[in-house]
Amino acid sequence: MEVQAFPVVSVIGVRGIPEVVAGADLAALVHAGIAGGGLAIEPGDIVVVTSKIVSKAHGRYADSTDRRAVVAAETVRVVAERMTSTGATRIVEGRCGVVSAAAGVDASNTGAGEAILVLPERPDEAAEQLRAGLALLAGHDAFGVIVTDTAGRPWRGGQTDFALGAAGVRVIEDYRGLPDADGRQLDVTAIAVADELAAAADLVKGKVERIPVALVRGLGRLVAPDSSVPRDGAARLVRRGPGDFFAMGHIEAARAALGAAPGSAESVAVGIRSVGAEPGSERLARAVRLAALTLTDTPSVLEASGDTEPEARVVLHVPGDDVDLGRLIARLEVALWSEGLTAHAERAGRVLTLRANGSGG
Amino acid sequence: MEVQAFPVVSVIGVRGIPEVVAGADLAALVHAGIAGGGLAIEPGDIVVVTSKIVSKAHGRYADSTDRRAVVAAETVRVVAERMTSTGATRIVEGRCGVVSAAAGVDASNTGAGEAILVLPERPDEAAEQLRAGLALLAGHDAFGVIVTDTAGRPWRGGQTDFALGAAGVRVIEDYRGLPDADGRQLDVTAIAVADELAAAADLVKGKVERIPVALVRGLGRLVAPDSSVPRDGAARLVRRGPGDFFAMGHIEAARAALGAAPGSAESVAVGIRSVGAEPGSERLARAVRLAALTLTDTPSVLEASGDTEPEARVVLHVPGDDVDLGRLIARLEVALWSEGLTAHAERAGRVLTLRANGSGG
Repeated sequence: MEVQAFPVVSVIGVRGIPEVVAGADLAALVHAGIAGGGLAIEPGDIVVVTSKIVSKAHGRYADSTDRRAVVAAETVRVVAERMTSTGATRIVEGRCGVVSAAAGVDASNTGAGEAILVLPERPDEAAEQLRAGLALLAGHDAFGVIVTDTAGRPWRGGQTDFALGAAGVRVIEDYRGLPDADGRQLDVTAIAVADELAAAADLVKGKVERIPVALVRGLGRLVAPDSSVPRDGAARLVRRGPGDFFAMGHIEAARAALGAAPGSAESVAVGIRSVGAEPGSERLARAVRLAALTLTDTPSVLEASGDTEPEARVVLHVPGDDVDLGRLIARLEVALWSEGLTAHAERAGRVLTLRANGSGG
Repeated sequence: MEVQAFPVVSVIGVRGIPEVVAGADLAALVHAGIAGGGLAIEPGDIVVVTSKIVSKAHGRYADSTDRRAVVAAETVRVVAERMTSTGATRIVEGRCGVVSAAAGVDASNTGAGEAILVLPERPDEAAEQLRAGLALLAGHDAFGVIVTDTAGRPWRGGQTDFALGAAGVRVIEDYRGLPDADGRQLDVTAIAVADELAAAADLVKGKVERIPVALVRGLGRLVAPDSSVPRDGAARLVRRGPGDFFAMGHIEAARAALGAAPGSAESVAVGIRSVGAEPGSERLARAVRLAALTLTDTPSVLEASGDTEPEARVVLHVPGDDVDLGRLIARLEVALWSEGLTAHAERAGRVLTLRANGSGG
């Protein structure tokens, strides 16, 4: 029987790279680390580097050791927010356009006690700079560099590594227009190979062992110098604008439509939903605050009670004639939706009784 | 100089697996394929298999060859929707809990002309079944199996492979409670290694070459038979319920709060936003239809004009006294937000003039 030749991709974890300090020559350290395993960067290789050591080399330590303050400073836009036992937790867009829970702010393994690291300023440039440095030492530039970070994902548990920066490597493998084996067009058209490379490298790098660099061998097709191969930076993988269907969480969207965008003072004033279960009366009260947000006068709560099983109840007095009751009721409908509540409203003059039940979804 | 031993993960693409037909013994085919490269499944290996060949072996061909109808039948819940040149495109939760553009429905390379494949019914069981079959042939069961599919992601361009099913392999590597090198707790706590494995395997499998199986070697820590290693299925990676902050797109959320949930008849009646640019007058008209949705009478459009540069305008006559104008205006505010419009309303008796401009965001 003839033995088939199988394609092999090797992901090699580069051990022995010393603690990286601000101002360090990262290319020299990575090159020496690779050499320490008796290896060299070969044509077609991809060097995958954790952003943490790039940040360390660039001296990207925050001025503050207050993690929350640093995350806030690195935040461009809040995407979703929930209260937890330690305060508001936010999913945010960071300076590099990446959406994550901490804007890439890193308080562990920073190599400097309490100091907090932030992401490299321009990750694609950082990747290109590292590649240029490595090219001098390797004697060729037929290789790629990827700078990785770690983030959670909507709809999926756990975190994975992704490509924060890239240089000299194809980030998307595009199959558009190619026929499948039956001659039909392929369903899947554009593979984010740079993210897959980051994920593959993470398997060997791990989070606890000191392996901040991986060498990926066997994917020369992604680093071909051929001009038909676009070699964009990883910034291309950031999806923003009209194509971003998830620019906010669903709860946040309903609240934002009523004037309480996530991350705003209005949102804090209304109160932020908890990650945990909350009594129905609390959710109902928050819905009332949200509904009343842009009205000149806030209804006063005459009575509130109970959980949503079988129902929570709130009785409101809507003051003056300057608050349009119809407007308040319509806003309440949206606000209740944002709390996962369905409610029944009874109106008697300027007194409104809401009975709510719901799942908290 | 002492040469360091570097950890290596090898991702081996298994060539030579023949076209899989309904009822085929998948374990026998995969085993023979691996043997065709002079290899065997070794303790600690992980066999990563494209769900397509599992679906083929299970004969998971849809009754219909109408792709839209098949996607609809596989859809549990619509998460986001946009109009495209070919009709409404939806991002949906499929039967297995995975959110994607096509509910895993696969119309390319199905191996049967126009036939359409759907995902395996219970992917974790399918993985376990394949593992049991392979264990008999390999003579041991100290290996894992992952069944993969491909999907897009929010916030990131392109698609990546993920773990749809898993057996005998750790799907999450949990670092909770572990100290970092400085003695602080690690920021990153739970790595979705099964998804990273799927991504790594995709790099060697590719989409065009016939390589539906990869053998991943060097990650024995993820398949240790040790009882301290939880070996859940990939179902554990599906995030649903209160922890899912992105159960709908932001546009869809605002519309749903007004009674037009994505995928509903109401949403279709209101009209679905286009992926492309639309005239402001069209967006304004859709906002009016959405705002009027639950009101007993629909306002009639007296006049509509223009784009949002500098502004679009619509003049409405609100009939009868049975439509509460305040309620309509409050609903219009939310509806306009869902269209990315900011508007100014003038009210003269039962005639409402809206002037809108906006970015389409």
